[in-house]
Amino acid sequence: MSAPDLLTLGEALVSLRSTGPLAVGGSLTTHLAGAESNVAVGVARLGHRAAWVGRVGTDEFGEYVLRQMRAEGVGVDGVTRDPDRPTGLMILERRTADLTRAQYHRAGSAGSALCVDDLRAALATGARLLHLTGITPALSDTARAATRWAAETAANSGIPVCLDVNHRARLWSRDTARAVLTPLTDHVSIVVASADELDLLGEPGADESTVVADLFRRGVHTVLVKLGADGARAHTPDGVRHAGALSVTAVDTVGAGDAFTAGYLSGWFDGLDLAGRLRRAATLGAFAVSGPGDWEGLPRRAELSLLDGHEAGSVIR
Amino acid sequence: MSAPDLLTLGEALVSLRSTGPLAVGGSLTTHLAGAESNVAVGVARLGHRAAWVGRVGTDEFGEYVLRQMRAEGVGVDGVTRDPDRPTGLMILERRTADLTRAQYHRAGSAGSALCVDDLRAALATGARLLHLTGITPALSDTARAATRWAAETAANSGIPVCLDVNHRARLWSRDTARAVLTPLTDHVSIVVASADELDLLGEPGADESTVVADLFRRGVHTVLVKLGADGARAHTPDGVRHAGALSVTAVDTVGAGDAFTAGYLSGWFDGLDLAGRLRRAATLGAFAVSGPGDWEGLPRRAELSLLDGHEAGSVIR
Amino acid sequence: MSAPDLLTLGEALVSLRSTGPLAVGGSLTTHLAGAESNVAVGVARLGHRAAWVGRVGTDEFGEYVLRQMRAEGVGVDGVTRDPDRPTGLMILERRTADLTRAQYHRAGSAGSALCVDDLRAALATGARLLHLTGITPALSDTARAATRWAAETAANSGIPVCLDVNHRARLWSRDTARAVLTPLTDHVSIVVASADELDLLGEPGADESTVVADLFRRGVHTVLVKLGADGARAHTPDGVRHAGALSVTAVDTVGAGDAFTAGYLSGWFDGLDLAGRLRRAATLGAFAVSGPGDWEGLPRRAELSLLDGHEAGSVIR
Amino acid sequence: MSAPDLLTLGEALVSLRSTGPLAVGGSLTTHLAGAESNVAVGVARLGHRAAWVGRVGTDEFGEYVLRQMRAEGVGVDGVTRDPDRPTGLMILERRTADLTRAQYHRAGSAGSALCVDDLRAALATGARLLHLTGITPALSDTARAATRWAAETAANSGIPVCLDVNHRARLWSRDTARAVLTPLTDHVSIVVASADELDLLGEPGADESTVVADLFRRGVHTVLVKLGADGARAHTPDGVRHAGALSVTAVDTVGAGDAFTAGYLSGWFDGLDLAGRLRRAATLGAFAVSGPGDWEGLPRRAELSLLDGHEAGSVIR
Amino acid sequence: MSAPDLLTLGEALVSLRSTGPLAVGGSLTTHLAGAESNVAVGVARLGHRAAWVGRVGTDEFGEYVLRQMRAEGVGVDGVTRDPDRPTGLMILERRTADLTRAQYHRAGSAGSALCVDDLRAALATGARLLHLTGITPALSDTARAATRWAAETAANSGIPVCLDVNHRARLWSRDTARAVLTPLTDHVSIVVASADELDLLGEPGADESTVVADLFRRGVHTVLVKLGADGARAHTPDGVRHAGALSVTAVDTVGAGDAFTAGYLSGWFDGLDLAGRLRRAATLGAFAVSGPGDWEGLPRRAELSLLDGHEAGSVIR
Amino acid sequence: MSAPDLLTLGEALVSLRSTGPLAVGGSLTTHLAGAESNVAVGVARLGHRAAWVGRVGTDEFGEYVLRQMRAEGVGVDGVTRDPDRPTGLMILERRTADLTRAQYHRAGSAGSALCVDDLRAALATGARLLHLTGITPALSDTARAATRWAAETAANSGIPVCLDVNHRARLWSRDTARAVLTPLTDHVSIVVASADELDLLGEPGADESTVVADLFRRGVHTVLVKLGADGARAHTPDGVRHAGALSVTAVDTVGAGDAFTAGYLSGWFDGLDLAGRLRRAATLGAFAVSGPGDWEGLPRRAELSLLDGHEAGSVIR
Repeated sequence: MSAPDLLTLGEALVSLRSTGPLAVGGSLTTHLAGAESNVAVGVARLGHRAAWVGRVGTDEFGEYVLRQMRAEGVGVDGVTRDPDRPTGLMILERRTADLTRAQYHRAGSAGSALCVDDLRAALATGARLLHLTGITPALSDTARAATRWAAETAANSGIPVCLDVNHRARLWSRDTARAVLTPLTDHVSIVVASADELDLLGEPGADESTVVADLFRRGVHTVLVKLGADGARAHTPDGVRHAGALSVTAVDTVGAGDAFTAGYLSGWFDGLDLAGRLRRAATLGAFAVSGPGDWEGLPRRAELSLLDGHEAGSVIR
Repeated sequence: MSAPDLLTLGEALVSLRSTGPLAVGGSLTTHLAGAESNVAVGVARLGHRAAWVGRVGTDEFGEYVLRQMRAEGVGVDGVTRDPDRPTGLMILERRTADLTRAQYHRAGSAGSALCVDDLRAALATGARLLHLTGITPALSDTARAATRWAAETAANSGIPVCLDVNHRARLWSRDTARAVLTPLTDHVSIVVASADELDLLGEPGADESTVVADLFRRGVHTVLVKLGADGARAHTPDGVRHAGALSVTAVDTVGAGDAFTAGYLSGWFDGLDLAGRLRRAATLGAFAVSGPGDWEGLPRRAELSLLDGHEAGSVIR
Repeated sequence: MSAPDLLTLGEALVSLRSTGPLAVGGSLTTHLAGAESNVAVGVARLGHRAAWVGRVGTDEFGEYVLRQMRAEGVGVDGVTRDPDRPTGLMILERRTADLTRAQYHRAGSAGSALCVDDLRAALATGARLLHLTGITPALSDTARAATRWAAETAANSGIPVCLDVNHRARLWSRDTARAVLTPLTDHVSIVVASADELDLLGEPGADESTVVADLFRRGVHTVLVKLGADGARAHTPDGVRHAGALSVTAVDTVGAGDAFTAGYLSGWFDGLDLAGRLRRAATLGAFAVSGPGDWEGLPRRAELSLLDGHEAGSVIR
Repeated sequence: MSAPDLLTLGEALVSLRSTGPLAVGGSLTTHLAGAESNVAVGVARLGHRAAWVGRVGTDEFGEYVLRQMRAEGVGVDGVTRDPDRPTGLMILERRTADLTRAQYHRAGSAGSALCVDDLRAALATGARLLHLTGITPALSDTARAATRWAAETAANSGIPVCLDVNHRARLWSRDTARAVLTPLTDHVSIVVASADELDLLGEPGADESTVVADLFRRGVHTVLVKLGADGARAHTPDGVRHAGALSVTAVDTVGAGDAFTAGYLSGWFDGLDLAGRLRRAATLGAFAVSGPGDWEGLPRRAELSLLDGHEAGSVIR
Repeated sequence: MSAPDLLTLGEALVSLRSTGPLAVGGSLTTHLAGAESNVAVGVARLGHRAAWVGRVGTDEFGEYVLRQMRAEGVGVDGVTRDPDRPTGLMILERRTADLTRAQYHRAGSAGSALCVDDLRAALATGARLLHLTGITPALSDTARAATRWAAETAANSGIPVCLDVNHRARLWSRDTARAVLTPLTDHVSIVVASADELDLLGEPGADESTVVADLFRRGVHTVLVKLGADGARAHTPDGVRHAGALSVTAVDTVGAGDAFTAGYLSGWFDGLDLAGRLRRAATLGAFAVSGPGDWEGLPRRAELSLLDGHEAGSVIR
Repeated sequence: MSAPDLLTLGEALVSLRSTGPLAVGGSLTTHLAGAESNVAVGVARLGHRAAWVGRVGTDEFGEYVLRQMRAEGVGVDGVTRDPDRPTGLMILERRTADLTRAQYHRAGSAGSALCVDDLRAALATGARLLHLTGITPALSDTARAATRWAAETAANSGIPVCLDVNHRARLWSRDTARAVLTPLTDHVSIVVASADELDLLGEPGADESTVVADLFRRGVHTVLVKLGADGARAHTPDGVRHAGALSVTAVDTVGAGDAFTAGYLSGWFDGLDLAGRLRRAATLGAFAVSGPGDWEGLPRRAELSLLDGHEAGSVIR
């Protein structure tokens, strides 16, 4: 196993998606979910080598999760199979046209039992970049320790670390998240957050520039603030740059943030400048929101320009 | 059987919904339909006791109709089963993205054979409010007599009566509707109508204020004028109040008016003031239009605030 | 419009099929149904010219019915569109794996309003054979008169008439059916019946040979007794011949009898001898039962030998 | 709340059913599952009053579970809603045509937190019979205590208790099951078991007659041994009676045992003799296996004779 | 076979449509596709007689194609069945909400083997108008010759010819298309093109007025420039007229241009003036984009006014 | 890339499966198909390292094919992407319950352009066994040369070659197949064939023992004759051994032969004796026929005993 471009870790789940309110029943479709695996798929589709480590059950859903990642070319050689715990499950309910609700069945899951030992081999192999999210430390004490260990180990080995805050209110409180995530940024180079997540890396209620300044002091060199349909803002020592989102018809916003991150990191792997990285981030975000699924619609390299210059209703024939 | 909060009566049908033009075939999905049962479901989901009376066949679709109402906690103990007539059926054709067409197979249906005797027990039990629509008197002579009898009996017992005009052009003409509905308002406290239905309760072409004044003279104390995406206007002796609609992505407007009425009546059962009742009416209307189905997406009490402060594409997790 | 090989008349309906109990809901798929149109499709698929006359509504289901018949090449130029009555509807419920139940919504339908005038042009054009079923005279007085008139007119013009008893217990009693159908056989050349229908053309409880003898006396020259999985028995003045059914996996028996008749008549149009006609009848019956739908699986001419020598699970590649 | 005919308690779950191997994904359909709720539905469909008590979450799946039971007319007034625990979930995988696998997500579920206090009101109201299964005591310590308490309380109040062994190998071992269930039979009148479950109520490996004799000594008066396609054997003080199964096409055996029990108890409520009770048990079992779903195909009273005298492929029209 | 109003020729294909990215699999639905057959269906639905000639395989997809055209009342008597070549196939991938991609499997198809002899009978029968598209000459040498022959033959017989440019970039280059199509316009009366296709009938990059002037010189008397949501522009010797599009919710733009042409030609068959023809063209375009499918949502004559005065979410009942 | 256990080569296609007759339309589901990839998946699911080489397009179906093989852990590093040719397609029509028909769209496909150069790297890497089928040499001249070259090269390197005859009547005649395949067996160690394919490796009409003797003379050491539901016969120098098939409910026989081969080869990789290899072959065959799809239901190693001792309708819970 040679070192991949991207190494990421976390919990990958089976996501069962409804098309309407759960209370009245109907059918659910099976998908791979997980912020980190979304990023890994996004990066792998563009031809970079990506690897994911984590823990899945020996149950059928564990097989499903691995089948999907393998299908996308994401390396799963380092994955631990846990015979005693089920693969985590989430139900994604389309409650109204505008509102989706997640219901987790991940307490006690294999993924939440992630521990330092699960990561040793992967970190030893190395990577060009390590991607972490703020979800993993919310899963369990061992997962929290594993996240911290991975960040430290990578940083100490000179591997840049990217952290997406990804606050999950159903898993932990903002205060607990802040207490855990802020110190983690000592080992982080790139921070990704939505605007309302930013103060989880600083004082409660702190404004953006203050948080960014703090992060720079801790050693972070890039802070990406996701603004949804308004695009994104990138803070670097050179200043602030705003990048607009592509204009597309949004049908499913789940996974858009992860796509954005994947695009940014792909640009970084390709050696693009900031503008180029942000543009690719916006492109992947646009693909993510204009199709169903968390990651199913992400582009391969030959498709990167597909949304350019096309208006709604375009047909290529 | 203790007295429910809401008593309503009418015809409940099986609605078979297409996703495209009927002429080219395809599949249809089965739903419970009926303006009055929609209101009953809306009220019951919010925790009020609701009962529906009417007549359904002993056929399988009759079972289906009762199963759905029971599922929603709507009382059906007073329902008459008619062994000789089928349960009414409607086909709801999604002709274009913007246009839905109903085709009724309800002539001679069990529901249209509703008669006074079917209602005696329910009226004797009483309720806090009786809800009627202008559909029932359009179904048959006996149903017309039953509607009139119910309005009179309730009014005489001090039970307030709510009437939603609900004009169905495929069932009767505007003139016939006017001739039947206008005298009915002598027994009515709350009138619900869309703007173009209002003159069915007055002179043809009469303007809103004239009709409202007439209705007030007949003893009506509240007139609610539904304005679709523009919200609603409430006329009371205290004056006129406009309430806006919530901003949501509309995917299916069928049932929105019934949801509005259910929300208003729920607010009334809860003792809310007019502003509060209108706000709840708008909330239920918003739930109805932002999901598929006539009533499937209506909120339970804990969900009432779910649409507040969320923009399109929100995910709760 | 030149004379077709087969002329048939009756009611064609939209059949909505469930895959499980109706009471618990689910989806229904749209199909063309009607014993006579089934026969017309079966015959047309084999390359004979077939025409169907009857009455359908101007509603969407009427369009659907005509689209399906046109698709199959069945002539519908003589069809009457009825602006005042809906196209008949039936619900076909798969109650258990072994039991299907039909529920009709055809009372007052366009098809049941069939009358003599609807048939004049078609009969004037003529045909090589007229096919009737015992369903049409059960629909209404005018349909009964039309059936009788058509049989008489055809017979008087030298056009042989085929009658399939097709008893529908939900439409009329055995006694009424007998009283209507028996005299009809005076004009009939070929009778098709299942074993338990045969005494509807004779004395109640009469045995097969007695009924056949009676029919021969009335001028019938062929009596085909359908025996389901046991094949069929053909009575002609030359004696009795039994023909076995093909061995296939049965998944849907609806339409099997009509397929049998279509096969027999196709053989007759092709000038086959009795054995050849019965073999083709058995072949079409086998196609009908080994696929879903009333007629969707019937063979084109090039497919007639497809079931020969194949066992379950065969793959042609 | 007046006393129902049948009172039962246990865990009701949402069952998500696949049509193929889970590992390759696809869609899942939502169903109500639970051995006890299956029995309650079966009994309620036949017109008896049935009530179910247990604990479900305040989540959407909890709503679903209650909607389904209410739809079927099963009383759920005594159900406890648990705001802190999710409603239990199971995945039912159609692994091959012959083999279905259950995967449970019920550890820590609301249903498994059932306790004595949840049952007090229901037991105080009483019933004509209390039905228990061997699944409930396998769920948790409190559920085990609750089962025992319910059996004792009912027996002490003169309410006969029916116990279906229903061994679930994924929940506990045979030895643990035996140690718990055997003493429980001191309070039981009717025992239901499959042949290989019988020795869970006696010595390991004990033969049927020995176990039955032991059970009689403990006060059991009827032992029903389910034999699948071979029918069932009933042991009473009057001797042993065998009853055959109805001959139907089996498409889904899940829920067949519960249907059998529901049929038997329905016969008991109706005052039928043993032969009549066994015949009804066999009838319900036949409906259960010849349609998809655990209970969806169970008959209403008017349908009890539907399978009599019909062969595969019958059509009622 | 009497002369139809519209005669058209080309390749009709089976179109398999996805609802998402092909790379992740899923299901495809079967449709009839083909620019010329779309026009024929649009015209036939409005009651004009339309006939299509071309070549399809003797395979199942060939049957499907013919079934669909017959269903719509399009004459297919002149169609050639090719036993040696398959019916053409296209995959229509819904890549994102805004972008659809066609993938053709039509190389070597029956349709591409179209030749002059296939058209002789149809041209001999005549028609009120011949419709051609720029797709057919892109299919093969013989198809190119056949298109030219048909245009010349019709023009020589006094049958006006309509040509829709319909450039397919996946079939040929703009230069090749220009070289073939420009001379073809010598025989053409009506030209239809989108704005970016217009210079395929003139010098590369020529502006609209120049191309139109050239076309007029060649004998064309009407040039229709399709502008999508902006409507259309009609050039005639009387000047330029702009017609707006109807305001509808667009869900599928495939087939919109063909619908526009069908509407225009229908107006021409009905003897409408230019404004009336353009209005009907816009109406059919609106139906096409506001429903799924290439032609499935096109109106029958009685439906032409259905979109007038209705806003999104209208329900007719 | 280290040497896999199994190396195989051929054409992998997208298979679009219908559930009924294609002529009446409906939906198709997407699957990976290909006799060789089926074997590779079967072997990989059991934990052996399997690699497939061949040529697929750069189109979306090419992506799909690779995604599926990667998902199953089949090595595709050696696959050639062909930018000029489409990935092959087949339509698998469920014509009746008993009969499936394949229709190929593989002429000119990427897969059929397989050539020697595509295989050099894979053969150089080596493997424990090379698996070929008689399909590949039927695809094109270059594919035929490539097959021959691979067999020779492997045999010369001491890698045993397995050949499954897999006659495809739609691709070539029996005579052509015989002329190509017979000389190929000079390099083959294991031959797999159905009984009616055996004489394609000998004289036309030759009986089994004669063909086997000839094959032994050419150096083959094992001849496996597949007998469908009757199991299989194995000829080795030690004699003939018959092995029965497992008794399961057959729902889809496509892929059963490939599963049989995969099972046999897995046993060979595991060092099982002939009886053990045949038993595993039968087990995989049973999994294949008792579930839908070519390979989707094949077992993982932990599932190998799943079908033992279970009768139809078993539930593991």
